[in-house]
Amino acid sequence: MTQSRTHTCNELRLSDAGKIVTLVGWYENLRRVSKNLGFLILRDFYGTTQIVIETEEMMEQISGVNTESTISVTGTVRERSSKNTNLPTGEIEVVPEKIEILGKCIYNELPFEINRSKEADENTRLKYRYLDLRNPAVKSKIVLRCNVVAELRRSMMEHGFLEITTPILTCSSPEGARDYLVPSRNHPGKFYALPQAPQQFKQLLMTSGFDRYFQIAPCFRDEDARADRSPGEFYQLDMEMAFASQEDVFAVLEDVLPPVFEKFGTYKTASKAPFCRISYKDAMEKYGTDKPDLRIDLLVQDATECMADCGFGPFEGNVVKAVVADGFKGTRKVIDKLCADVEVQAGNKAYWFKVDENGALTGGISKFLQEHAEAVKEALGLKPGDFVGVCAGKKQAAQKTAGVLRRYIGALAEGHMKTDCYEFCWIVDFPMYEIGEESGELEFCHNPFSMPQGGMDALNNQDPLSINAYQYDLVCNGVELSSGAVRNHDPEIMVKAFQIVGLGEDDVKAKFPAMYNAFCYGAPPHAGIAPGVDRMVMLLAGEDSIREIIPFPMNKTAQDVMMGAPSEVDPKQLKDVHIKLDIEEKKTEE
Amino acid sequence: MTQSRTHTCNELRLSDAGKIVTLVGWYENLRRVSKNLGFLILRDFYGTTQIVIETEEMMEQISGVNTESTISVTGTVRERSSKNTNLPTGEIEVVPEKIEILGKCIYNELPFEINRSKEADENTRLKYRYLDLRNPAVKSKIVLRCNVVAELRRSMMEHGFLEITTPILTCSSPEGARDYLVPSRNHPGKFYALPQAPQQFKQLLMTSGFDRYFQIAPCFRDEDARADRSPGEFYQLDMEMAFASQEDVFAVLEDVLPPVFEKFGTYKTASKAPFCRISYKDAMEKYGTDKPDLRIDLLVQDATECMADCGFGPFEGNVVKAVVADGFKGTRKVIDKLCADVEVQAGNKAYWFKVDENGALTGGISKFLQEHAEAVKEALGLKPGDFVGVCAGKKQAAQKTAGVLRRYIGALAEGHMKTDCYEFCWIVDFPMYEIGEESGELEFCHNPFSMPQGGMDALNNQDPLSINAYQYDLVCNGVELSSGAVRNHDPEIMVKAFQIVGLGEDDVKAKFPAMYNAFCYGAPPHAGIAPGVDRMVMLLAGEDSIREIIPFPMNKTAQDVMMGAPSEVDPKQLKDVHIKLDIEEKKTEE
Repeated sequence: MTQSRTHTCNELRLSDAGKIVTLVGWYENLRRVSKNLGFLILRDFYGTTQIVIETEEMMEQISGVNTESTISVTGTVRERSSKNTNLPTGEIEVVPEKIEILGKCIYNELPFEINRSKEADENTRLKYRYLDLRNPAVKSKIVLRCNVVAELRRSMMEHGFLEITTPILTCSSPEGARDYLVPSRNHPGKFYALPQAPQQFKQLLMTSGFDRYFQIAPCFRDEDARADRSPGEFYQLDMEMAFASQEDVFAVLEDVLPPVFEKFGTYKTASKAPFCRISYKDAMEKYGTDKPDLRIDLLVQDATECMADCGFGPFEGNVVKAVVADGFKGTRKVIDKLCADVEVQAGNKAYWFKVDENGALTGGISKFLQEHAEAVKEALGLKPGDFVGVCAGKKQAAQKTAGVLRRYIGALAEGHMKTDCYEFCWIVDFPMYEIGEESGELEFCHNPFSMPQGGMDALNNQDPLSINAYQYDLVCNGVELSSGAVRNHDPEIMVKAFQIVGLGEDDVKAKFPAMYNAFCYGAPPHAGIAPGVDRMVMLLAGEDSIREIIPFPMNKTAQDVMMGAPSEVDPKQLKDVHIKLDIEEKKTEE
Repeated sequence: MTQSRTHTCNELRLSDAGKIVTLVGWYENLRRVSKNLGFLILRDFYGTTQIVIETEEMMEQISGVNTESTISVTGTVRERSSKNTNLPTGEIEVVPEKIEILGKCIYNELPFEINRSKEADENTRLKYRYLDLRNPAVKSKIVLRCNVVAELRRSMMEHGFLEITTPILTCSSPEGARDYLVPSRNHPGKFYALPQAPQQFKQLLMTSGFDRYFQIAPCFRDEDARADRSPGEFYQLDMEMAFASQEDVFAVLEDVLPPVFEKFGTYKTASKAPFCRISYKDAMEKYGTDKPDLRIDLLVQDATECMADCGFGPFEGNVVKAVVADGFKGTRKVIDKLCADVEVQAGNKAYWFKVDENGALTGGISKFLQEHAEAVKEALGLKPGDFVGVCAGKKQAAQKTAGVLRRYIGALAEGHMKTDCYEFCWIVDFPMYEIGEESGELEFCHNPFSMPQGGMDALNNQDPLSINAYQYDLVCNGVELSSGAVRNHDPEIMVKAFQIVGLGEDDVKAKFPAMYNAFCYGAPPHAGIAPGVDRMVMLLAGEDSIREIIPFPMNKTAQDVMMGAPSEVDPKQLKDVHIKLDIEEKKTEE
């Protein structure tokens, strides 16, 4: 065997000068100074070290080797004459006595330059992911992910949670998304499905007597890719607590998440417990979204009373919302772009006006407001210099547009957005029922399996539309990290909740038979949540593409181009599991 | 909301007497003493507490409640008059002021008694796994598993390993077992496969520049169940190290495993580093198996020279093996059973004789040995009182039978088997090639992707049958926990190794294309192993059925009878993924 390394490539310091060492790693680069002098960079997982070649013989040896080969270097540590203070090993260099090739790179040209792989075409990066990952800037995001997950685990265990792995081969469930199916060999015509989430299993664990469960849980949804959603598999910090309330769940995450965000995030501060709690209704009113970015200190104001009748056509008979900001210095061009961007995002027009230094309304739609200028200024609390973004529509559309306006103005106006912190909040009190937009009938608003606030009493005696659910969202910097709920653990309340929307016990059972059966044997009240690990890591890494924080991501069409998955399989394999292909037309996509 | 618990059911002590507390949990049992006195056992995840009901009203209330309902009890802690010193809470009881029902068990009869669930029929246990798991004796094995996994993780991280999750939706690979297939929606006619192991990904991680990888990795093989193998999914402590030798891998596990085994095992001692290393050849010679149970101090001896010609038919022209033990006190009945058991296990007959107190050979096949009695005694080092188990056959069959004999005699003879420890060993130096039993031609012995000892030089210059591979097994108490290897990271050596068995570069590429491609871009020497988590936990828990250490196991025919997986799915779901059923004949198995 080859001599083992004595040090990593990030380990040698000035105090090691004089030592004979062996380093191993990738031959990253050689700067040739002359035929008997060259500076070689050796890179391993931990860092880089400079190797100075000072003999013609060794220069010749290394000339025959392609970069990115793995090599072993044995030599003497020496103080550098020109030190690089940016590098931990920048004070020394190693003068080799022997260089050994461990693993040849047989190509003298690579698909991309390792240290600039992020500039390469994405498909090429994914195909050669093993080269892409050699780029320290790419690798560091994966290391970050690993560290974040390890820290979440540590913290959850410290909070008394037990990590329990739940089955991956399970059954098709109506969670909303499309299942991945796995044909069964032993049971012809039957299929396993990969879990969209371990929701039922964690509730079954509660019913089994486990008290505090968590899992870094792989979840599978056959959905198309988005920037923040990789096709195929993703991970959740899945958790559930027995005999627990909404506040118990909040307390755990308020304790677990901020230290992780502060330790590993690009921003070094995060909200402390208790996070802001905002009712769904208030969130829509004040932030125009149920995912408010609390780094922005602006609020949406209602301007219906002071503007709807101003004579401006789009406002007539509509709800009007306004976002007021001082410190907005945008030129006309910036304002036009703002309005255009908001329209694209919200699907609804945005308008504006300003208050000049004399208190007069100017620009944009101001001419329609002159008649009621004082009423407008009074209603919105306007001051000289204020910029006002305005939008109108039916209530929901107006709220949503105002929410987008708020984000854009917050980002543009000076002093209205913190840029160096993680602002968490809980959105609470989601309504249990709503009138379906399409059906016009009473429907469950979100999750039929959340506990209605007030329990059976509320179901029996309240207007269904006035009932809230113990359901909540965790939001960070405008990104929804998770929904969660106090679960409805009581079969009687469950049946009643279904009756209200015209369904029966059979429908409850049909949806989640195992869980319903289990609850009939005495279930504890329980509550939980499942923050998305991938999204959290994206926030921490400051990356916009989810593929940057996954070791071996699929591409946007759900292919692993490195491994060649999915692939054709042997007909015998299909026969074994009792299926055959059912392809209607010849596809030519590939 | 209901009042939260103030304590768990395992928390109250004498010093809490006088406090007003709220406990929550399952109503396990009520011992009625009179119409106004009863002792109720309340159970939660943590333990049990006795509740004394002392009013007629409350006795009536609880009479209307089925056991296994969840309840909340608020009352005063009081010192017990008759203490139970076996229970942590045995010095106190709680006198309730209020009992509230939290989750009704609507059945007044259960499929089995919770605390005796292990005696129930397995299918019933699995169907009502949420009741089975309420049994503290069942639950404790799952808690053990969680704790073992957490400790393995902690220790691996402490050793500088990074836990990296690899894809679960990947491609079909020729690892030996049958793949689980997942039809692709976006790519008609193509399939993902669930990984049989993350083997390729971990080697790709090494090639990507990661240095020490591990993962508690879910693995999937569509194989039939065995006592120690659950159908479907199982977990490995998968690990791989760059720039590492066999000894580097050994050193890590020798450091990681013994403390975990000592902390969580039923036995409280485990081998210390370095574990015994035994070459494959020696293991077969001395232990008759490559999975020797080193708790047994007996060795297999070769008796061919002194016995083959003794005139006993079955020995003639065969290899003869013997296992000698003192302290064997078995009656004739025990000996006959021993021989019968060995024959069943080994598929080959076993024989015996004894040395009496005068040194004469008696019993069993002794009459055939009388002529050469002294030579036999000399060759096997026999003493008065020794028992000798003997078997014969072609070399392999004789070895294997002797290995089984060794185990049985070791268990029966006094003082030859430790019963309170975990004895680890490494089996090393597996041959690289062998003459295939069926083909009669040179074949790879185990894994074609292990590095041959001596590298290219050995392949070029040695008799292939004399070449060993850097391949090893980890064995504990006779159970193989894992195979591992120094990988062949050099495409040239790989191609040469394949050429020797008449295959070519195309065959290498066909087997693992991504890995072969990656290795051409400069791979580090690397080595790894992947001990089975389920098997380790079985050893630690002292359980013989793997289903006892899996939270929600499938039954032997790969069904989850609680969830109803696998199940029929909507025809549209099949259409979406471009497959249809292919069922030849009506099966009536279910």
